[in-house]
Amino acid sequence: MTKGEQLYEGKAKKVFSTEDPELLIVSYKDDATAFNGLKKGTIQGKGVINNRMSNMLMKYLETKGIPTHYVEELNDRDTVVKKVSIVPLEVIVRNIAAGSFSKHYGVEEGVVFKSPTVEFSYKNDDLGDPLLNTYHALALGLATEEEIKLIEKYAFGVNDILSDLWRKYGVILVDFKLEFGRLSDGTIVLADEISPDTCRLWDSETKEKLDKDRFRRDLGGVEEAYNEIMSRLEENMK
Amino acid sequence: MTKGEQLYEGKAKKVFSTEDPELLIVSYKDDATAFNGLKKGTIQGKGVINNRMSNMLMKYLETKGIPTHYVEELNDRDTVVKKVSIVPLEVIVRNIAAGSFSKHYGVEEGVVFKSPTVEFSYKNDDLGDPLLNTYHALALGLATEEEIKLIEKYAFGVNDILSDLWRKYGVILVDFKLEFGRLSDGTIVLADEISPDTCRLWDSETKEKLDKDRFRRDLGGVEEAYNEIMSRLEENMK
Repeated sequence: MTKGEQLYEGKAKKVFSTEDPELLIVSYKDDATAFNGLKKGTIQGKGVINNRMSNMLMKYLETKGIPTHYVEELNDRDTVVKKVSIVPLEVIVRNIAAGSFSKHYGVEEGVVFKSPTVEFSYKNDDLGDPLLNTYHALALGLATEEEIKLIEKYAFGVNDILSDLWRKYGVILVDFKLEFGRLSDGTIVLADEISPDTCRLWDSETKEKLDKDRFRRDLGGVEEAYNEIMSRLEENMK
Repeated sequence: MTKGEQLYEGKAKKVFSTEDPELLIVSYKDDATAFNGLKKGTIQGKGVINNRMSNMLMKYLETKGIPTHYVEELNDRDTVVKKVSIVPLEVIVRNIAAGSFSKHYGVEEGVVFKSPTVEFSYKNDDLGDPLLNTYHALALGLATEEEIKLIEKYAFGVNDILSDLWRKYGVILVDFKLEFGRLSDGTIVLADEISPDTCRLWDSETKEKLDKDRFRRDLGGVEEAYNEIMSRLEENMK
């Protein structure tokens, strides 16, 4: 499998065609952005970590019944994935108040919810990825009712599976963002990535942030945090 | 029934105790505000119109099976209502894109939805009444799952009933805001008001705005619009 034409360059990844029209190659970059692209920087080695972590977690989720776009890891930065049409909804699952939730609803960061929440944002940079609910998503024609129900089910499933996994490795899964896509036959699968760029991950004991918030909030030790969280996964999941 | 102590003064209404601990008197003012209080003004006669319209519509909704806080109209501006503890959710029902929906989701005002939407805002002026979904409302402890289901059911019911009613009088019900409250025994009832302050109402033929958007957007003819929409209701519902 070799890279063909570059189809797309996003904030953290490039996407290439392959000789198979149903497959793509995703290539992870070290570029980091935050606040809808207003803040830009580089996190050395991030692309390698996010590629490997996302692949490990997607493979694990597949074994637990969550369909994903993952096909094959080619090398440290490149992975073959199934070609999907992305559902234009950012799916955010939260176990603990943090980030925009804390800001918007006046809840201190760290407050643990009785039960997890799922929310959708309309994936649209020009509009600032605004929060919306299921009725809005239907009114805007972003997905069908069946797709939304399935996506919610998968999102809660991913949360249960990954919360349990991270807990074993001394990490709290605070919240995370997922994206889903439609295969050419319409099947909904988990797409995009699962990494410290898309998850809030706190050390269970110290509550130290081991994720992109270190970059967003200029907390320092960004590369160290990415390396730390990756080593917890790699040492345990082998 | 006479006014006791003033318990509360809001943007458009005052609330007084009565000799019955389960009943209050609401008194409608002509004061108008918009954009979370940033814009202030007066709409002559608005209090009288909103009081009478809200009472007519709540009485009508009661006959159709929607429980409300309405008890008795005392005079042009004063009405006896059941005392409730307000559920801190603004419930917005939309049939047509307008206002904040158009702005947030980049949809032109006037686009008709295939099916109506219901959304919740967290009733909190300091936070700017942020949009939230059912999971958030549960996480924040704003209402129980059963209450939210009932409120959604009532909101869609009110929409069906009032859309039909206004249609007969040459008016399109574009969107509206409801508030619900809990009686002392926990029963959920429709509270607050239903008026041109809380509904978008367009003339069916001309699409002329007959509601508070004339004040919000400095369109002129504010009092005339309130009088026009009231006369359509009063002439037909007698």
